[in-house]
Amino acid sequence: MNRTTQLRKLIDGAAGSRAAGAHDSLSAALVEENGFDAVWASSFAISAVNGLPDISLLTMTDYLSTASKMVASCSIPVLADCDTGFGGVPNVTYLVQRYEAAGIAGVCIEDKTFPKTNSFVDKRQDLLDVGEFARKIEAGKRAQDDPDFVVVARTEALITGAGMEEALHRAHRYADAGADAILVHSIKDSPHEIIEFLNAWSGRAPIVVVPTTYHGWHFGEARAAGVSMVIYANHALRAAVRSMSNVLKEIESSGATNSVENLISPISEVFELTHLDTWLRLDQP
Amino acid sequence: MNRTTQLRKLIDGAAGSRAAGAHDSLSAALVEENGFDAVWASSFAISAVNGLPDISLLTMTDYLSTASKMVASCSIPVLADCDTGFGGVPNVTYLVQRYEAAGIAGVCIEDKTFPKTNSFVDKRQDLLDVGEFARKIEAGKRAQDDPDFVVVARTEALITGAGMEEALHRAHRYADAGADAILVHSIKDSPHEIIEFLNAWSGRAPIVVVPTTYHGWHFGEARAAGVSMVIYANHALRAAVRSMSNVLKEIESSGATNSVENLISPISEVFELTHLDTWLRLDQP
Amino acid sequence: MNRTTQLRKLIDGAAGSRAAGAHDSLSAALVEENGFDAVWASSFAISAVNGLPDISLLTMTDYLSTASKMVASCSIPVLADCDTGFGGVPNVTYLVQRYEAAGIAGVCIEDKTFPKTNSFVDKRQDLLDVGEFARKIEAGKRAQDDPDFVVVARTEALITGAGMEEALHRAHRYADAGADAILVHSIKDSPHEIIEFLNAWSGRAPIVVVPTTYHGWHFGEARAAGVSMVIYANHALRAAVRSMSNVLKEIESSGATNSVENLISPISEVFELTHLDTWLRLDQP
Amino acid sequence: MNRTTQLRKLIDGAAGSRAAGAHDSLSAALVEENGFDAVWASSFAISAVNGLPDISLLTMTDYLSTASKMVASCSIPVLADCDTGFGGVPNVTYLVQRYEAAGIAGVCIEDKTFPKTNSFVDKRQDLLDVGEFARKIEAGKRAQDDPDFVVVARTEALITGAGMEEALHRAHRYADAGADAILVHSIKDSPHEIIEFLNAWSGRAPIVVVPTTYHGWHFGEARAAGVSMVIYANHALRAAVRSMSNVLKEIESSGATNSVENLISPISEVFELTHLDTWLRLDQP
Repeated sequence: MNRTTQLRKLIDGAAGSRAAGAHDSLSAALVEENGFDAVWASSFAISAVNGLPDISLLTMTDYLSTASKMVASCSIPVLADCDTGFGGVPNVTYLVQRYEAAGIAGVCIEDKTFPKTNSFVDKRQDLLDVGEFARKIEAGKRAQDDPDFVVVARTEALITGAGMEEALHRAHRYADAGADAILVHSIKDSPHEIIEFLNAWSGRAPIVVVPTTYHGWHFGEARAAGVSMVIYANHALRAAVRSMSNVLKEIESSGATNSVENLISPISEVFELTHLDTWLRLDQP
Repeated sequence: MNRTTQLRKLIDGAAGSRAAGAHDSLSAALVEENGFDAVWASSFAISAVNGLPDISLLTMTDYLSTASKMVASCSIPVLADCDTGFGGVPNVTYLVQRYEAAGIAGVCIEDKTFPKTNSFVDKRQDLLDVGEFARKIEAGKRAQDDPDFVVVARTEALITGAGMEEALHRAHRYADAGADAILVHSIKDSPHEIIEFLNAWSGRAPIVVVPTTYHGWHFGEARAAGVSMVIYANHALRAAVRSMSNVLKEIESSGATNSVENLISPISEVFELTHLDTWLRLDQP
Repeated sequence: MNRTTQLRKLIDGAAGSRAAGAHDSLSAALVEENGFDAVWASSFAISAVNGLPDISLLTMTDYLSTASKMVASCSIPVLADCDTGFGGVPNVTYLVQRYEAAGIAGVCIEDKTFPKTNSFVDKRQDLLDVGEFARKIEAGKRAQDDPDFVVVARTEALITGAGMEEALHRAHRYADAGADAILVHSIKDSPHEIIEFLNAWSGRAPIVVVPTTYHGWHFGEARAAGVSMVIYANHALRAAVRSMSNVLKEIESSGATNSVENLISPISEVFELTHLDTWLRLDQP
Repeated sequence: MNRTTQLRKLIDGAAGSRAAGAHDSLSAALVEENGFDAVWASSFAISAVNGLPDISLLTMTDYLSTASKMVASCSIPVLADCDTGFGGVPNVTYLVQRYEAAGIAGVCIEDKTFPKTNSFVDKRQDLLDVGEFARKIEAGKRAQDDPDFVVVARTEALITGAGMEEALHRAHRYADAGADAILVHSIKDSPHEIIEFLNAWSGRAPIVVVPTTYHGWHFGEARAAGVSMVIYANHALRAAVRSMSNVLKEIESSGATNSVENLISPISEVFELTHLDTWLRLDQP
């Protein structure tokens, strides 16, 4: 089954699904190996491994290159976080053409102005005019070739303080425009406002959530509340940062690596993750 | 001080120095933040995060692109692992031109045949003819523009079973050819053969070691034995793999992320590592 | 129809077909617009526009990136010149996976050793062992996912002076190994040796030729002699070099551009070639 | 002399200077070979060879990659056309850091809103608020490390119909903000409005012009009128398009290439332009 079709079934299915964020091909492979249904090619995490904050400094070229390589390293669908669409309506058309051609199963674009600021940054965040963003969604949908390619519309209305009414209004407009799912983002400590949104939502398009801050909300509860897909967007990256810091600090202060051997994967595990044996067998006469 | 000059001082200095391996800009920044003197742009680790084993599938373009971005994310010198030089003599000329132009402080090439296999792989490893490799080193040295740019010659003689005599012979030939330092690689569990090499070595060029397997050898001992630079080549990567695996597994099985919060860095730490505040201040009127 | 299928029909068809070389997306679009059946993503021409000779300095990453962009700018199949396969057997597996994933319809690899030297260079050229090259072809064929993806085996036996017997022997071995077509290269001033080859050939695989030096051989004659596809590999590049030189020289010496206006395309023609109107219409409410 | 210093001398010098547009490394080499003082890395031309119109579809990553490769293929300074700066103030900081690190001698940014439309497109063009653009120039100047790196401010006031007053007002504001030169763009058939601008200009910053449409204006006249640098921005590209079209059409219709041999450069010329002999000599024992 094509990965576009796989992603569509995940989004549309009654069972609920889970994606986890990746920032390179190896983390994408680990997302698959640990049982997730899809990879979220996170712009926050991809920016971070490039040493940059998530404020539209990296470009579509950079994000697409990374997401394309993820497609090669796993067999589950890759859903790519595409920020605001990297410009206006033609940019969204262009991105859908390019991401689809690279084998990515779907994209998600958000209704902030360009250049955007990451949702967790304590700074005024501006929403794009709702009609203008709806035109981006329409353009994205028209640009796809494979009918199963997925375009997710993300509203930041709850982040910017525009309120629940606005969030619902926007979700309806984006569904009208053809969005295959709506990602409602919230950075509250509890799922309260997400639950309120779900209760008021008609169910006319699947809902995707990113419970980074309301981290106690279980997948089962989210499904029961009507969520279609839950994305654990940046935990792999944050796990890597913590452990790399710890291990490097220990090596530097202890003057050797024996004390970290039990904190790190053996080289053989890296060989397995990168399928070394399969590659070497190719070369046997 | 230019980073080429910094690296030269590290290599030539009596104090000894330590580098740690990185695979992207963020891990390079962590190497610096945790007190190391230089970044080792590891081809093993860069291949791994691209989902590939270290058998010459990634190209010079890929490695150079990654190493270039490391230069932007830290202020210590970047020494780039350049495998066998990606081809013949003209390829080494080309790589020195391109790596130097990208701000990388030095490169290391090894005396195996192309395409190479990672030194830890249990498979026959072929050494390139010593004269042919010496010509690569000469070409690399002639190609540099900045006199302080560093070319390290790595011999795999101890890995391939060619023996101590051959290792020493090659080290002398590479020093004759102009190598700024000799990296003697060993995958023994103890530093015994490295110590034997150092005892027999004339000291006419600085020695670099990579104690991945002889992990109990302390930096102080290595310095006392005559080592100039110690490279902890792949520990950051292996730390990341271990922790990402653990955290993803826990999220998948527990159904939420609250139980991993104490295992991962807060988002604010990622903001700090990527200098978010500095970037945001740029935009204040 | 998929472009892989299109290319297979061109190669297998009785009618004969013609490809022309391109070095970027625009030249690929011009190849299509002027009636050719396929684009040849020429490594000679791609190297040249990157300022480099065709001696394996550019990498698979560079060539793939260029060929991928050609796919986006035209609707005819792109057949990519992949030199010697960029390494050993695993490299060929890797290249087929990556080129196919990028939408390229087929690849051509040649039986010289890596790093290669362009066939027109007056320098000793070494053939790879025939069995070793046959293993590359087998690996390439096993790596493809779409059964219509095309792998062309190019023999340089006539270039290196190995002779007609060797050329035929190799062509048979490569056909045995699964090659979808055989490209027999010749740099003679007349098609004599190509005709000799065709007369001796069994017809068990289609034959592709590149009549750069025997430029008087008409397509009709080639078809009649049994050629399946003719590639005009580098003429677009050489046209561009000649005219850019002339026009730049004239501007420099005359001190203005009015005297070159009739030698250059109007800006409107560039707009048309890049479909500006289509892109602008996307943005109309 | 550093290329930044070379470019500064060209911009500031009394003698006047000429740049010509390039779209890849080879055209940049031809610009140098034909006697121009600098290369203009044209976003219009680079977009075109990528098969795209000049409406902000390609990204900073794409343009930077192309301009970086130009630096490697010539020894004259490269001045890079950077559209609107690819976003807001932090994007301009980022671009100056990255372009300078890549060896590019200077950048030019223009005062339109993002995403921009090419100046020759008959469509409403919006100017960015003058203060906002001045902040971009200030940010660019603060970001440079080498004091000789050049930041050119381009005003599109005459293109958008904002008028001469506005053009002069903006030029002064940009000079106040630290711009090293002002590029005043005009698409009139005669240099009339440029001359009017020059007559009213104080001379407090050098003036750069791009006489694409007023193509009869000689370099000597421009110098006499007070112009510092003249850029022939897209003629090499347009020469290439015209000749590639003609040659491909002729090959397709005639069925052979003998009739185009006198319209195209010999292969030996491509070898010379790419310094094949120099590269091959590297490999001689």
